Amino acid sequence: MTSPSRYAIGLLGHGTVGAAFAELLEERAAHVEHITGVRPEIAGVLTRSRGDFADILERSQLVVELIGGLEPAREYVLRAMAAGRHVVTANKQLLATHGEELWAAAREHGVQLRFEAAVAGVVPVIRVIQESLAAAHVERLHGIVNGTTNYILTEMARTGASFEDALAQAQELGYAEADPTEDVNGKDAAAKMAILARLAFSTPVSVDQVTYEGIVGITPDDMAYARDLGLELKLIGTAERIDGGLSVRVHPAFLYPGHPLAAVSGPFNAVTVESPAITEITMSGPGAGGPQTASAVLGDVISAMIPPASTPATEERLPMVSDVVSGFYLRLEVADRPGVLASVADVLGRHEISVKSVVQRGLGDNARLVMVSHPALESRFYDALGEIGRLDFVRDEPRAIRVIEEEFV
Amino acid sequence: MTSPSRYAIGLLGHGTVGAAFAELLEERAAHVEHITGVRPEIAGVLTRSRGDFADILERSQLVVELIGGLEPAREYVLRAMAAGRHVVTANKQLLATHGEELWAAAREHGVQLRFEAAVAGVVPVIRVIQESLAAAHVERLHGIVNGTTNYILTEMARTGASFEDALAQAQELGYAEADPTEDVNGKDAAAKMAILARLAFSTPVSVDQVTYEGIVGITPDDMAYARDLGLELKLIGTAERIDGGLSVRVHPAFLYPGHPLAAVSGPFNAVTVESPAITEITMSGPGAGGPQTASAVLGDVISAMIPPASTPATEERLPMVSDVVSGFYLRLEVADRPGVLASVADVLGRHEISVKSVVQRGLGDNARLVMVSHPALESRFYDALGEIGRLDFVRDEPRAIRVIEEEFV
Repeated sequence: MTSPSRYAIGLLGHGTVGAAFAELLEERAAHVEHITGVRPEIAGVLTRSRGDFADILERSQLVVELIGGLEPAREYVLRAMAAGRHVVTANKQLLATHGEELWAAAREHGVQLRFEAAVAGVVPVIRVIQESLAAAHVERLHGIVNGTTNYILTEMARTGASFEDALAQAQELGYAEADPTEDVNGKDAAAKMAILARLAFSTPVSVDQVTYEGIVGITPDDMAYARDLGLELKLIGTAERIDGGLSVRVHPAFLYPGHPLAAVSGPFNAVTVESPAITEITMSGPGAGGPQTASAVLGDVISAMIPPASTPATEERLPMVSDVVSGFYLRLEVADRPGVLASVADVLGRHEISVKSVVQRGLGDNARLVMVSHPALESRFYDALGEIGRLDFVRDEPRAIRVIEEEFV
Repeated sequence: MTSPSRYAIGLLGHGTVGAAFAELLEERAAHVEHITGVRPEIAGVLTRSRGDFADILERSQLVVELIGGLEPAREYVLRAMAAGRHVVTANKQLLATHGEELWAAAREHGVQLRFEAAVAGVVPVIRVIQESLAAAHVERLHGIVNGTTNYILTEMARTGASFEDALAQAQELGYAEADPTEDVNGKDAAAKMAILARLAFSTPVSVDQVTYEGIVGITPDDMAYARDLGLELKLIGTAERIDGGLSVRVHPAFLYPGHPLAAVSGPFNAVTVESPAITEITMSGPGAGGPQTASAVLGDVISAMIPPASTPATEERLPMVSDVVSGFYLRLEVADRPGVLASVADVLGRHEISVKSVVQRGLGDNARLVMVSHPALESRFYDALGEIGRLDFVRDEPRAIRVIEEEFV
């Protein structure tokens, strides 16, 4: 049996996500122990070739289901909950098909059934709809909930590639499965929209009630005209109230640039929830990938382990760092005479500040020099700035504003 | 005393947010009862002129603190938790100043202290950092956490207005207080960043450790050059690990267009959390306003009332609607001869489809006609499309793709 200071997790499935979860759990075990007071550990792993479900269940306080598919996943989840175990799953097919049965079983047995990783990977859309927006009257929900198709459409727009070429590239980079049928025909997104609609509107929605259309027929010409018209083409899931009813659907759609989903690119997912009281909330992030999905699963596991919202005591005492690295925009009002740019560049160079772009505008006897620098230590930049401010051709206090570069996407 | 089927809430403060919360609670009481099994009701309201704290505390199961400021808010929150009551607060100053004392008291008394509304209004950043990302090793967090300044900067960029004019306009529209000092000098954002940094990095952070710089000195010229350089200017809060330490700061910064915060405009707030395992998650939404903040408070109240993650039974049986309203992009390959556009426009007009924009390109004997329509019933559009497909000058299957318009922002 388990010791009181250990929390035993039964892991069903050891594919990409299962292996990433086991690794992440070990890596973050001490941190989880700090938060929850108990150390999580894997009590047993069930794969096709090894492990016995009944035995693992017996030794676990919580079961993580990462097998996928309908059976035996459904049977295992039901048996685990009937035995009083919390369950965390990433299985969208299971929930889109047997959700009501499973949620009813969770209520009946007084256990938690958490499934953040089933929709939009690490984007916390399930928790936000179920908890933050529990009281909201949701009017509409838009989602980019399939990373494969969003990657393909982004590449078609960016490079002018055909659908086939962009798909081949997505497969090469691991953004698309060997058999991408259910991604590109919209069925995968339809299952996810069924789950989101059920939660947001508290009405039964099964996956076969979701109409869907994929991106197979999209051509480079469509993309070219979209560009002419200033639009972005995405595979959009929509769930909305219409005249006392509900529409849930998935189809390609053009978005105006102001739409919160228009800028979501590459394999990212995003969901926008609209409600009169809140206007709208948008969440975005990576939609899939082993480590990302594992991270969503671990967030659910921790929530099942601890009473909610107890802010843990601090765990570290990080020293405050005052000198950081920044790029800068620098604006100088200068006399319009030869050598000015060279002098400024010289000062910057001596302080190891390199320049990324320059705009210069003449204004009668004066000129305005605007530069953007590459990132450098702020202390070094300000030393240079002080020196520049003392140059005789500088007519006014130099203006400096930091520039933040995109680092991940 | 309270009946077992009622949940008694003591409300401290009845200003804009307090009044909006009381109204929202009444409006959503039946829904909350469906979710939680008990009906929430206001057991008492404390204002400057009426109500007695001890009496309200006695009659409440949970206390909502919306007085603001440090005292007596701190005293009331501590007394409520010592008496075993959960507390929900929207008080950023209180948490940025006395957070450790209050969180320790919550842990000591085994009660929940929830504060989603204290940072970024209805954007669920507190819940996501504390729960979804509980196990994540956060590397960096960027936030637009002051709606007033984001509104001002958006207007300056959009209209070329001066800081003073944009501020006056923000005040007129209710996006800025009569005394906007702590918004425009960055201090309000600094308090919020102290709270976020504490939670994300599990290290003590007090508001006086946050360096900040506001937007008072930003000029229309800065905006004009930003445009030339393709950058967006925002007031950005940053908290990041640097060489084993932590930097927390607020300052104006230019963002490249690809940055997830670059497109956040008007009074919206947004936060991006970066972590190696998840890459990044971005959340955005309205940062303030009575109904929005009240909605965040109610989400916290419900979470305190119920065991977590029990998906409630469905509450409605909404009929599925199949015919919805959409705008469409329509592409036609046609013979390049006079009268083609008029014939197509005639068919659309008879089906009450109105056209928003048209692009036409000649291709030898053929031409390509691309139109975007205003929203109309899809059945009507498809009837028109069928008719258009049968016109003798149409050379190929017409292409139709839906267009989604931005409706809220």
